[in-house]
Order: sequence, then C-alpha cells, then structure tokens
Amino acid sequence: MEFRFFLSVILLTASLSAFSQQKKSEPATDKGLIKVSVMYPFSEGKTFNVDYYETKHMPMVAGILGSNLVKYTIEKGVASGIPNQPLPFMAVGTFYIKSLSEYQSAITPKRDEIRADFANYTNVIPVILVSEVVR
Amino acid sequence: MEFRFFLSVILLTASLSAFSQQKKSEPATDKGLIKVSVMYPFSEGKTFNVDYYETKHMPMVAGILGSNLVKYTIEKGVASGIPNQPLPFMAVGTFYIKSLSEYQSAITPKRDEIRADFANYTNVIPVILVSEVVR
Repeated sequence: MEFRFFLSVILLTASLSAFSQQKKSEPATDKGLIKVSVMYPFSEGKTFNVDYYETKHMPMVAGILGSNLVKYTIEKGVASGIPNQPLPFMAVGTFYIKSLSEYQSAITPKRDEIRADFANYTNVIPVILVSEVVR
Repeated sequence: MEFRFFLSVILLTASLSAFSQQKKSEPATDKGLIKVSVMYPFSEGKTFNVDYYETKHMPMVAGILGSNLVKYTIEKGVASGIPNQPLPFMAVGTFYIKSLSEYQSAITPKRDEIRADFANYTNVIPVILVSEVVR
C-alpha cells in the first residue's frame, strides 16, 4: 500500500511537471519576435489560390528559413472593416522569425526561386511589411 | 492508507484534467478565428504614438469587444520587406475574434467614440482588413 501511494505521488509530480512545461513551450505572447507579413492586394481581376499557397509555396519558404522561423500563419481576406470600402488584401502570409539579418541571409540567394513560384498561385505583386511584435 | 491512495488518484486525475484543459485553452493555432487588422499607413509627416495605443486605445476597444475577443496583438512597422520600397504601415493592431457579427454589433454603437480617440495617437486614417485564419 505504501508503494502504491508513492507511485501515485511520483505520477502526480510527473504530470504537474508536464503541465508546467506545456505552459513554457507555448507562450501567451509573441512579444519581441519579428514578423514578415506578405500581403496580396485585392483589385478587380486579381486571383489567389489559397490551396497552392498553403500546401506548396509557404512550406517551401519555411524550409528555406529553417530554425530562424518560429511559426507561420496564413489568412484569407474576407472584407474591408470599413463600410463601402473594397477588400484591401486577398490573403496574407506571415513569418514569425527570431532574427531579421538571418532571414535576409537565407532569403536573398533564393529570391528568384521564390518569386518564380508566385505565378503558380497569384497574378498580383505582394506588399511586404517587416514589423516588431510589441504585444 | 487506502484513503491516501485514493486521494492521490483524485489529485492525479484533477491535474491531468487541468493539463488537458490547458492544451485546449492555448491552441497551437488560431485556425478558424476571424482577424480584424487595423493597419496605419506610413507616409511623410505621419505620426503614431505606440505607448498611447498600447496603454489606452487598445484596452478601451478590447473592453468594448468583451468575451468575443480571444486576444489582441500590436506590432510596430520597421521596414518594407522589399528593397528601396517605403515602409507600408507604421503600426498594426489586430483583434482575434470568434464572431464577426458579434464584433459588428459591439463596435457599431461605439464607432464615433473609438474614432474620436484616433487623434490622441495618430494623424492617419487606418486601413482595416477582416480575414479568416486558414493556418
């Protein structure tokens, strides 16, 4: 019976430890990270293939970025938030990175390869914003 | 001794249950959420006070959105990601919400109050993108 009790205490400790590690590995904020937001403007006649972007293009770029990339997100434009205004962007892909200089070193030699893939999913040139996560 | 054993099992179950709830409340992805991105364009002579925005404006809007708001983020524009292009946006504030219709119902009666606060931190009119998180 003593043995069962101690076994339970050990299991309890292990599970509480897993619980606290879970909290550490998924911080509530991305504060301090650099975001590279690739924004595809909407206008009449412009197209964007979200499936290709999600399954081919973004994984390709993510592979180029390597361990500097913390995560990436994809969003699909739905509407302008201002009544009677056109949709500003059809889609946005965002890379959350640790270092901007490492990003530039990784991307520069691959820029032509990345741009050559644009034609496979869109006929628009993106706007790119580099920003710092404040909160 | 039996009592201690059962107490340990109960504690273990409770802690495992907390662990699984933790995973649920902090998902690795925001997939399916709606994003409202309020983007402040950069141009010569335009200003933006990030401190006021972070400490006053965003908490005020967050209060209006209530429980429909999952989280909000603030980012500060650093550069254009395209060489020799101007910075596209000085700052972006983003609300991650569950329901767009609830968002509109909450914001509409408060729109004038929110806009009146703009002059306290910027002299530019934002562009607003409503999008759906695909990944």
